[in-house]
Amino acid sequence: MNPDESEHRLSRATASRLSLYLRCLSMWQRDGIARVSSGVIAETLGLNDTQVRRDLASIGSLGRPGIGYPLSELIEAIREVLGVNRSWKTILVGVGNLARALLRYRGFQEQGFDIVALFDSDPAKVGTAVGSLAIRAMTELPKTARTCHAEIGILTVPADFAQSAADAMAEVGIRGILNFAPVILRLPETIRCVNVDLTIQLEQLAFQIVRD
Amino acid sequence: MNPDESEHRLSRATASRLSLYLRCLSMWQRDGIARVSSGVIAETLGLNDTQVRRDLASIGSLGRPGIGYPLSELIEAIREVLGVNRSWKTILVGVGNLARALLRYRGFQEQGFDIVALFDSDPAKVGTAVGSLAIRAMTELPKTARTCHAEIGILTVPADFAQSAADAMAEVGIRGILNFAPVILRLPETIRCVNVDLTIQLEQLAFQIVRD
Repeated sequence: MNPDESEHRLSRATASRLSLYLRCLSMWQRDGIARVSSGVIAETLGLNDTQVRRDLASIGSLGRPGIGYPLSELIEAIREVLGVNRSWKTILVGVGNLARALLRYRGFQEQGFDIVALFDSDPAKVGTAVGSLAIRAMTELPKTARTCHAEIGILTVPADFAQSAADAMAEVGIRGILNFAPVILRLPETIRCVNVDLTIQLEQLAFQIVRD
Repeated sequence: MNPDESEHRLSRATASRLSLYLRCLSMWQRDGIARVSSGVIAETLGLNDTQVRRDLASIGSLGRPGIGYPLSELIEAIREVLGVNRSWKTILVGVGNLARALLRYRGFQEQGFDIVALFDSDPAKVGTAVGSLAIRAMTELPKTARTCHAEIGILTVPADFAQSAADAMAEVGIRGILNFAPVILRLPETIRCVNVDLTIQLEQLAFQIVRD
């Protein structure tokens, strides 16, 4: 392993693998395991041992031969690099079925994504509640988002409304958008966006089946 | 462009980009546009023009200088390569909130993923219906999946049940699984799997914000 690696900026590909390592490590931690080798991580995920060791070295974690990596330290190190060792105030726009499913998804809270406000443009929904959160009108978004110091926006609106909802988020200082709408958003360069496009996932699955 | 490219097997990275091209092209087709240049596709998606031309050449589509690509032919060519120019009989296991959201998602049907049967292990759900589909007991999965000639399985069960549900799918000839459970499935090599892990997407968003 080359210690110089830790000075490099991490690539998105490395960050994706770190996310996968974190899944395994968290599972093993729940099972009461205290130490793990790069070989076990590699085998579980179908990766190359050298790749795993290089990735972990790149975030400054060096396993000891024959002993491995201390699990809780490794988890902390990865969570810090990925930025999930803190809380992110999060707002959600578009309270349909997908949003209701997401709001029940414990993973958001567990990863520190604290959903603090819901918005919808449908007057019939405004004023009703999902769990302990009231659904607010879109006109309230600027003031509420600023008061809550919201940094992340989840977009679960239909395709036609996605760009205008994203624009509203961009104007109030949202730093990152998790976009479930099947559109490519035009956003200022300072705003990060991750698209969760189920159509693309489905096409990739079909492609993997047919290309064999 | 090198015509030899079309003889190469497509990489997953190329397939992912083809999915993105398909999103833009379908949007433009709905808007009544008949021809498109690689430059417009590249600009819309923030990609390099050469990359777009190379990808399209690799599936045998050659644009004409000053004229571009005929939109409907290009859409057909991409759909064929991705394997979404046909219908896929699809079963779903685990009818919770996420499943109900997915069942309302028109994209499945539009891409040819025809959901033909729903299964759940909760006796209280079995026998009830979502839309026109009855929820069946897990014990009915083998017979029903074979009768329907199901090829794709959607897994929307909690993490603890994911592996056993995947095993049940594997035994009845399912060729591909779209897995929403936050676990890494152990599957026979002949079965393709695409993981839709929201936790990973969230971590990648946080990472992109904090690394700046």
